[in-house]
Amino acid sequence: PIDVQMLLSPVALSGLLSVLAFLFSYQMIGITGPHLIAAGLSGKDMSKKKSKRDKEGEDSRVIPEAAGLVAGAVYLGIMFLFIPIPYAHSIMDHTLGSQPTDANVPSIISAEGSEMRTFAAFIAGILSICTTLFLGFVDDVFDLKWRHKLQIPTLASLPLLMTYFANGGLTDIAVPRFLQPLFGGVTFFDIGPLYYLYMGMLAVFCTNAINILAGINGLEVGQSLVIGVSILVNDAVILIFGSPEAHDLHQLSVYFLLPFVGVSAALWLYNKYPAQVFVGDTYCYFAGMTFAVVGILGHFSKTVLLFFIPQIMNFLYSTPQLFRFIPCPRHRLPRFVPKRNHLDVSWAFFRESELKAPGRVVLSVLRRLRLVKFYRSKQDSDYVACSNLTLLNLALHICGPLHEAKLMNYMLALQVLSSMIAFGIRYGVAGIFFEVVAD
Amino acid sequence: PIDVQMLLSPVALSGLLSVLAFLFSYQMIGITGPHLIAAGLSGKDMSKKKSKRDKEGEDSRVIPEAAGLVAGAVYLGIMFLFIPIPYAHSIMDHTLGSQPTDANVPSIISAEGSEMRTFAAFIAGILSICTTLFLGFVDDVFDLKWRHKLQIPTLASLPLLMTYFANGGLTDIAVPRFLQPLFGGVTFFDIGPLYYLYMGMLAVFCTNAINILAGINGLEVGQSLVIGVSILVNDAVILIFGSPEAHDLHQLSVYFLLPFVGVSAALWLYNKYPAQVFVGDTYCYFAGMTFAVVGILGHFSKTVLLFFIPQIMNFLYSTPQLFRFIPCPRHRLPRFVPKRNHLDVSWAFFRESELKAPGRVVLSVLRRLRLVKFYRSKQDSDYVACSNLTLLNLALHICGPLHEAKLMNYMLALQVLSSMIAFGIRYGVAGIFFEVVAD
Ligand SMILES: [Mg+2]
Ligand SMILES: [Mg+2]
Repeated sequence: PIDVQMLLSPVALSGLLSVLAFLFSYQMIGITGPHLIAAGLSGKDMSKKKSKRDKEGEDSRVIPEAAGLVAGAVYLGIMFLFIPIPYAHSIMDHTLGSQPTDANVPSIISAEGSEMRTFAAFIAGILSICTTLFLGFVDDVFDLKWRHKLQIPTLASLPLLMTYFANGGLTDIAVPRFLQPLFGGVTFFDIGPLYYLYMGMLAVFCTNAINILAGINGLEVGQSLVIGVSILVNDAVILIFGSPEAHDLHQLSVYFLLPFVGVSAALWLYNKYPAQVFVGDTYCYFAGMTFAVVGILGHFSKTVLLFFIPQIMNFLYSTPQLFRFIPCPRHRLPRFVPKRNHLDVSWAFFRESELKAPGRVVLSVLRRLRLVKFYRSKQDSDYVACSNLTLLNLALHICGPLHEAKLMNYMLALQVLSSMIAFGIRYGVAGIFFEVVAD
Repeated sequence: PIDVQMLLSPVALSGLLSVLAFLFSYQMIGITGPHLIAAGLSGKDMSKKKSKRDKEGEDSRVIPEAAGLVAGAVYLGIMFLFIPIPYAHSIMDHTLGSQPTDANVPSIISAEGSEMRTFAAFIAGILSICTTLFLGFVDDVFDLKWRHKLQIPTLASLPLLMTYFANGGLTDIAVPRFLQPLFGGVTFFDIGPLYYLYMGMLAVFCTNAINILAGINGLEVGQSLVIGVSILVNDAVILIFGSPEAHDLHQLSVYFLLPFVGVSAALWLYNKYPAQVFVGDTYCYFAGMTFAVVGILGHFSKTVLLFFIPQIMNFLYSTPQLFRFIPCPRHRLPRFVPKRNHLDVSWAFFRESELKAPGRVVLSVLRRLRLVKFYRSKQDSDYVACSNLTLLNLALHICGPLHEAKLMNYMLALQVLSSMIAFGIRYGVAGIFFEVVAD
C-alpha cells in the first residue's frame, strides 16, 4: 500500500529533485572543466608528484579551479523549479476559487498571510545564496583581498536580514538558566538590533570558517557534506518527534539542504583525492551561506554552530597567526614531501627576539601544551620555527606525516565525531541550561 | 510647508538611494577598471585611431570589459537595503502589536496577505535580476555560445514565473475589440500555461534585444537609459492620473527602475564616446531583465514592449542574416575608416549564385526598397557585397558615413522619438483596440 500523498509531498519531491541535481551537476562538472581552464580559472595541485609527461613540458597538475560555480548554478536552477511546490496546496485553494464561508474567514486568510511570509523568506534565502554564488565567483575571478571576504557574506546576507525585519522577525534570545536571575528571571530576552548583527556575523563566520579549513583534496566539500547531512538528521529528528510549530521551519531547512547535498556529492566525486577539479571560493561561500540561511530562517542557528566544532577549533587555533602575534607566512598548507609522497607540517620561520609579549606568551603556552612543533637553529639560537597554526598541521603534528588521502579521512572522521558530540550537547546537555530546546 | 510624510515615502527614499547608487557606482567603476583588465576582462576599441604611444608597444585602445558587473553589484546592494522600506507601514502595525478589533479582522489580515504576496514577488524580481547578473558575468568570463544567450534569461526568469504561479497569478490576456466576436464576446481570455511561455520569451527578448543593438560607444547604456526613463514617465502618469488598483504595481516598477537609472547614468559617463570602459554582456542582460521584471510584475508587458521599437526594428531587419538567408560575417559592426575618423557600413561578401530562393527574394526586396547598400564586382559579376543588416548600418546607409559620437546621438534620438510614438500608441490608439488600458 503506497501512500500517494506521501510520494507527492514537498519533501519527497525535494529528494527527487536532489537526485536530478546530483546527476546533472556530475555531468556538467565533467563537461565544463576544460572551459574553466581556458578562461584562466585553474590552479596547480602542489601536493602531487610531477609525472614523466610533466617533465616534457605541460604540467598535468594544472586542474580546473572554481568548479563550485557549476554545482552552484545547478543548485540555483533546481531551487527555482522547486519554488512553487511547497505552496501547491494554497495555490490549489486559490485557483479553485474556494470561497471561504464567513465563519472561517479569519483563520484561512491569516494562515495564508503567514504562509506567504514563509514564502517570502524562502525566496529571500535563495536570493542570499544566489548573491553569494555571484560574488564568490567574482572573488575567484579577481582574487579579492581579505577584507572583501568579510564584505561579501555581509552583503549577501542582507536580503535575508531585511526580509526577516520586514516580516517583523523575533529578536528574542533564550537566556541560559544560570543567567536568568540577572535578567529578572525571564526565559527570553529581546536583544533588538544586536540580533541582526548576530545573524550577519553568523553568515560571515559560516562562509569563512569553511574557506579557511581547506588545503587538501576534498576537504571543503567533505566537511560541508558532513555538516549538511548532520543538519538534515537533526531536521528529521524534529520532523518526526518535534512539536508541530517547529515543523514548517525544519521542512524549509530540508528544502535548502537536500539539493545542496545532491550537488555537493557530485562535486565531491571530482574533488576527492586525487582531485580532478578544485572547488574555489565560490563553493566555500555557497556552502557556508546555505548553512547560515537555514540556521537563520529555521531559528536554530545555535544548533547549526554546534556542527561547526572543527571549524571553530581551527579558527581559535589560528588566531595567534591571524592576529599576527606569531608571524604568518602567505601559505600555511601542509608541506608535500615528494620523496615519501606524504604531507608533513609546514613551518613559520622567525627570530624569537622579534616576538612581542603576547606572541611570546602564546607560543610558550602552545609549546607547554605540546600543541605545536617547535625547532631552534643550532647555529643561531634566536632563529626558530614553529608549525603553522592550522588544524591540518595540528593533525600532522599529533599523528605524524600522513598521505593526503589519509589526512583527509582523519579530518572527516573528526567532523563526524564532532557532529555526534553536537547531538549529545543538543539533546543532552542543552536541557540543563535552557528551558526551551524544542527547535 | 514641507510634507514629512511625503519625504519619507518609499518613492522618495528610492530616489535618495538611487542618487547614492549613482555616486557609489561612479566611484567604483573608476576604481575597478584596472582590476578588470588584470583579470583578463578587457577588449580593444576597434573604432579608434592608434595613438603615437601605441606604436611604441602597449595599446592604449585596450579598455576594461564587463564594467556592467560593478554597476550591477551596486544595484543589488541598494535594492537589498530598500527591501523593507515599502513594508515599513505593515511592520509598524505588526511590531506595535496593534490588535485588530473583531469587526475589521478580515480586511486587515487579507490586506496583509496580499501585501506579503507583493513582497514575495518583489524579492523574486530581485532574485531574477541577481541570477541574470551572475550568469551574465559567467558569460563575460567564458564567452558562452549563442544558445546559452537564450538559456540564461530563461533560467533567470524562472524565480519570477514560479512566484507568479505560486501567487495564483492571472493568465488572462486582453482580447482586441475586433477579435472579441471570435472569442464569444469576452474582453479577457485565459491563455493558461501559454502566458508563462509568453513571460519567459519576454525575458529572452528584452535581454537579447539590447545585446544585439550594440557596437558603438555608449549605445547599450544609452538605449537602456531612454527605455528606463520612458517606463518611469509612464509610471508617473499612472501614479498621478491612474486608477488606485494600478498604483501598487507601478510603484513596484519605480522601485526597480530608479536605482537602475542611477547606476546606468554612472556607467554612461564612462561608456560614452570616447569609452573608458565596455559594459559587457553582464550589463545588457541586467538591463533587459530589469525591464522584463517590471513588465511582468506590473502586468504592463505590452507597454514595455512598445518602448523597444528600435530594438524590434533591429531584430526584424537582422532576421535575413540571423536565419542565414543572406550570409552573415562573424562581426557586423560598422567599419571604422581611420583616415577620416568616421564609421561607414560594413559588408557581407558572397557569390550571388550561392543564395537560395528565400535569400534572393529578400535581397531583391531590400534593394528595391533601398534598405541596403549593394555592390557588384566589375571583374566577376557573380561576386557581390551587401551592407550588413543591422540598424547601425542602415543608419549609415541612409545618413552617410558618420563620426561615432554623432551616430550614437542619432540612435538615441531615434530611441527618444520611438518612445514618443509609443506614448501616442499607448494613450491614443490603444483605446480603439482594447476596453481596458488602465495599467
Ligand atoms: Mg579568491
Ligand atoms: Mg560574451
